[in-house]
This record gives sequence, C-alpha cells and structure tokens, in this order.
Amino acid sequence: MKKITCSILGFGAIGQGVAEVLLMKKEYLESIGLEVKVVAIVDSKGATVNPEGLNLADCLSRKRIRGTVALENISGIEVIRSVDHELVIETTPTNIKTGGVGLQNMFAAFQTGKSLITSNKGPLTLKYRELMTTAKAAGLEFRFEATVGGSMPIINLANEVLAGNKIISIKGILNGTCNYILTRMLEERASYTDILAESIELGIAETDPTYDVEGIDTACKLVILANAIFGLDTTYKDVEVTGITKITPEALEMANENRHVIKLIGEVSKERIEVAPRLVPINHPLAVGGTLNIASLCTELAGEITVIGKGAGPVETASAILSDLIAIYKHS
Amino acid sequence: MKKITCSILGFGAIGQGVAEVLLMKKEYLESIGLEVKVVAIVDSKGATVNPEGLNLADCLSRKRIRGTVALENISGIEVIRSVDHELVIETTPTNIKTGGVGLQNMFAAFQTGKSLITSNKGPLTLKYRELMTTAKAAGLEFRFEATVGGSMPIINLANEVLAGNKIISIKGILNGTCNYILTRMLEERASYTDILAESIELGIAETDPTYDVEGIDTACKLVILANAIFGLDTTYKDVEVTGITKITPEALEMANENRHVIKLIGEVSKERIEVAPRLVPINHPLAVGGTLNIASLCTELAGEITVIGKGAGPVETASAILSDLIAIYKHS
Repeated sequence: MKKITCSILGFGAIGQGVAEVLLMKKEYLESIGLEVKVVAIVDSKGATVNPEGLNLADCLSRKRIRGTVALENISGIEVIRSVDHELVIETTPTNIKTGGVGLQNMFAAFQTGKSLITSNKGPLTLKYRELMTTAKAAGLEFRFEATVGGSMPIINLANEVLAGNKIISIKGILNGTCNYILTRMLEERASYTDILAESIELGIAETDPTYDVEGIDTACKLVILANAIFGLDTTYKDVEVTGITKITPEALEMANENRHVIKLIGEVSKERIEVAPRLVPINHPLAVGGTLNIASLCTELAGEITVIGKGAGPVETASAILSDLIAIYKHS
Repeated sequence: MKKITCSILGFGAIGQGVAEVLLMKKEYLESIGLEVKVVAIVDSKGATVNPEGLNLADCLSRKRIRGTVALENISGIEVIRSVDHELVIETTPTNIKTGGVGLQNMFAAFQTGKSLITSNKGPLTLKYRELMTTAKAAGLEFRFEATVGGSMPIINLANEVLAGNKIISIKGILNGTCNYILTRMLEERASYTDILAESIELGIAETDPTYDVEGIDTACKLVILANAIFGLDTTYKDVEVTGITKITPEALEMANENRHVIKLIGEVSKERIEVAPRLVPINHPLAVGGTLNIASLCTELAGEITVIGKGAGPVETASAILSDLIAIYKHS
C-alpha cells in the first residue's frame, strides 16, 4: 500500500468536495493500492493539522456548523513549510490579477519538494511556464485538469488518451453560466438583464457576474489549454475577448430563424486565442444548451473528437482532482 | 531510448494504417523516448521478416503494387513463435463465430511472453476473461481501445482519465453505418433498401451489411465495454439485439414531427446489455447524425460525460492503436 500524505488548501465548495470524494472513494483507492491521508486543511480563518491524518467527516461537519475548519491560526504557506507531506491540493479562489494566495502556495509547494494538484486558474494564467519549469526542475508533479471544464476531461484526454495525436485546435463552450444565459434568452425571448437576474437567483451566475459574462473565465481556460496542450507561453493579455453582454433577444431570434444559435465560443490553436459570440448551426454538436460545457478537439490523425460534460459543481470538480491524484500515483 | 520490437499481424486497411502512423510519428515517438521497430508483417498470403526492422515505406508500396507484403510462406502464429519481439499488433479481420486466426494469435502471443494491442473484436466477444487472465498471469499488457468507436476514446477514457469515477452505464451510437442509413432515410424520405444501396456504393456499408445493420457489430462492442469497464464476464449471446432493417421512412417522419429521431442505441450497465432502435429527442447529444459515433457515460461523481468521434477509418483506428502503444511504454 502506497501511503500519500496531503494537504487541502482552500476549504470552500471545491475543497469540501475533495474531502467528500476522498471519504467516498477511500475503499476504491485502497483497492488500487493507495492510502490517502489528509494531514492539514486550511481555510481563510486558519488551519487544522494532524500528522496522523485528519478525520475528514469531522472537518466537514465543523466547517458546516462553525463556518470554518480552523483550529490553529496558521496559513497555507506555513502549513506547506512546516507540516511534513508530499502532495498539496490547492483549491483557493481564482485571482487573475495577482494570482493571489494560490500563486504563493504553488511556488512554496515546489520549493519544499511537494507535488501539486489545483482547480485554481489564476496562477496558471499568469505564470504557467515558470510554475511548470519549477515543478519539473524539482522532479515534481503539477496537474490541473479541474481548471478547465470541471468534470469534463480535456487536458488529460489530449495529453494522455490522445498522446501522439497532435491537437491542431480546440473550439468550445467553456463557461456554463454564459451558455445558460444564451439558452434561456432564446427560450424566453427575454433580455440579457432579465435572464441574468434569473441566473443569479438560481445560483448559476455569481452576484458579480463580470468574470463569466465578459468572457474572462473562458479566456483564462484558453490560456491554460494553450500552455498545457499547445506548448505555448501565453498569459491572459494575449487573448482577444468579447463577452455576451451586448447580445439581444432579437439577434438570437434572427439566428434561430436561420437555424443557428449564438454561443460564446472559445478557440485556441498555435496561431490564435480568441473568445467571442459566434453563430453555430442548430444541429452542430457545439449547439449544446443549458449549463453544459463542450470542447471539440481537431486532431491530426483522428479527425474531430468532441467531449461534453458538466463544467462546474463541487463534486464534479473534485472528481477531476481525484483523477489527477490517481494519475500521479498509480504507477508509483 | 526504449527500443520496442513489434509485429503487425493482418495487413489490410487497419494494419496498413498502423504502418503509416508509425512512419508519420517516428520523430514524435523518439521525442518521448520510444523507438519502434517492426520486425515482421503478416497478411493472408504470408510474411515479411527482418529482425533488424522492416522498411515500412517499402512494405506499404509492395502491398499496394503486388496486393501482398509476403516474401515468406509463414503464418502469424509462426511469426509469434519464431521471431524475437515483445509486442504484437493484431489487426486481422473480426470473426465472432470462432474468433478466427485472431484468437489463436492472441493466446500464442501471451504464451510466448508478448504484449498485445488489437483492433479485432471477435476474440474479445468470445473469450475476453480467459484472454485477460492469461495476459495478466504472464505480466503482459493487453489493450484494445481500437475495438470500440475507432478513434473515439472510450475504454481508456473510462479506465484512465475517469479512474476512480465509477461508470454506472454507457449509452451510445457505436456503428457509423447504421447512423448514416437512419440519417439519410430521414433526409431523403427514402426507404431502407434505397439508402442501403447508396451506402454500399459510397463504401460506408459493406456488400454484406448484415453485421452492421442487424446490430451485431454494436452488440460486440457492448460486450467489450461490459467486460473491460464494468468487470463483467459476458459474451455475445448475453446481448438482446434488434437491428434497423425494419425501420420505415414513415416511422422516422412521425418521430421527426414529434421532434425526435430514431437511432440504433447500444446500452450497457451491470444489469443490462441491449441494442435496439430508440427515440431520441432532436436536441439531445445522442441525436448526432452522419457516420459519427457517440457515447454518453453516466458517472457516479461527474454526471454524464459524452464523447463524439469518427467511429471508423484506417488512420483513425490506427491512432487508437498508437495511443495504446504509448500508454504501455511511456512509463517504462
């Protein structure tokens, strides 16, 4: 049995999803020879640490009841530096301006010899190449399937299952909130403002939806794909971005009369990284509705391969983190 | 550089596709530390053998000009037993009654300590468990991504990228010929017989289309998924099969008026393996048209994950064989 000691930094919806999935999958992981021991969990108020392994069910219920898991006033960086473990699971919130605490956590992890799995896009849109070089130089793993498309496999699909099959371009809908808004605007013949209000009420859009509706979230995901799959060295400022805030119900209706829908499409290749609303034929796979995410990979040998899945959700995102964890350790 | 010696047994469209892909991808494979040397190629007329490695371009042009690659009158089994190599690439034609020469090749490979990658469904629908047990007992690899969905990744997607994420059921269109016929029957309001004739003329259906249109091909693929992903021990006779030969243009039209299409759907779970024409809502991902294949995996943690791709084609199928080869050797 391979024993893996890890920390969970960030204990919001995704961090808690990771703890839940590790509880649910304990027996399965043991059946493939992996015993995962969480030795520290950190949220914005502090940390709980136990070198023998925390009781995850207790941590989850403390978080629910008290709003924090913290028992000690120490930060993620301090946990990385002072608590002995080999893997950091980084799920702090995305900050695309500075990289936030996530960026510091990532460098600290690699500097102290720890591999890292993350769902946090911010640091990867600012410092991908530097982070990857630092991890590789130290012989460490750095994986981030959860940063793009939630549970929808795309990075590991391209780099592992399709290994050897050059990816020429990727085109897709990578933001479920925008897809929901555009789908509902057409269904209800309603304005952007009305459907945005509905989306916020349903918890599909955030109270400040800028990040999603201006195409910024999609652009960040394209930057990660550009770096991780196309081997580029890009950052957020290299992307041409147009969001969905200026789309009218009339435009959607006119498209519909011509058997098209309007979707916020992200496209990435070696030559071009762009986010913009585009017309999609009504029977094309990219016309998928609701909050779904979709990505079509144009490949050298296998033609177009398309994958569709739920782009968000704590357990869904945690399942992508779990698949990264298994990928790192199953051969060791 | 890891040197891999292999044979290609069967040198029809898929075997030649493998040789072409190995030629195209020589530099890429070397860049990831793999040097693949083909020491023998066998077709129905005999073999060509060179322990130092065959010239694949010469073999392909000899096959095109003379109709055979054979220079020596020896069979696949004899090559497996007498030529020193470590990997067999088995692309002989599918025979679901006896398993054909493919079944003998597979057991012979495992008995002589060779790993095996195949695109041949027959042996896997008859003797999956026995083949897998024999391979595992000898510490050998046995991979077959190319048997289901051509280039569309499904077995490696479920067992590797989605590792840890239990697959509850898989539902999909796994036969491009049937999908093409049903799509065209609706488009042209034409009879099954007329569109079948068109399909044969275009090379989309075979002269004897029984295997595809009666749902047998789909059933074989479900058996492979049942065994490889759901851990069952099933064979072809466990599947309930209905084909598409009795579907009328009137039925398709009536479905269409109710915003549905009729598709030949294969479904597999621990409880049920079934192939039958079913109604699918017009805006559902499974309503995909043309010759495309599609599979929706219902997963425990990530909801429904759908993959769409080209189900056939020599280079497409060879690309699935290449991904298996890389998966076997990249960690060694």
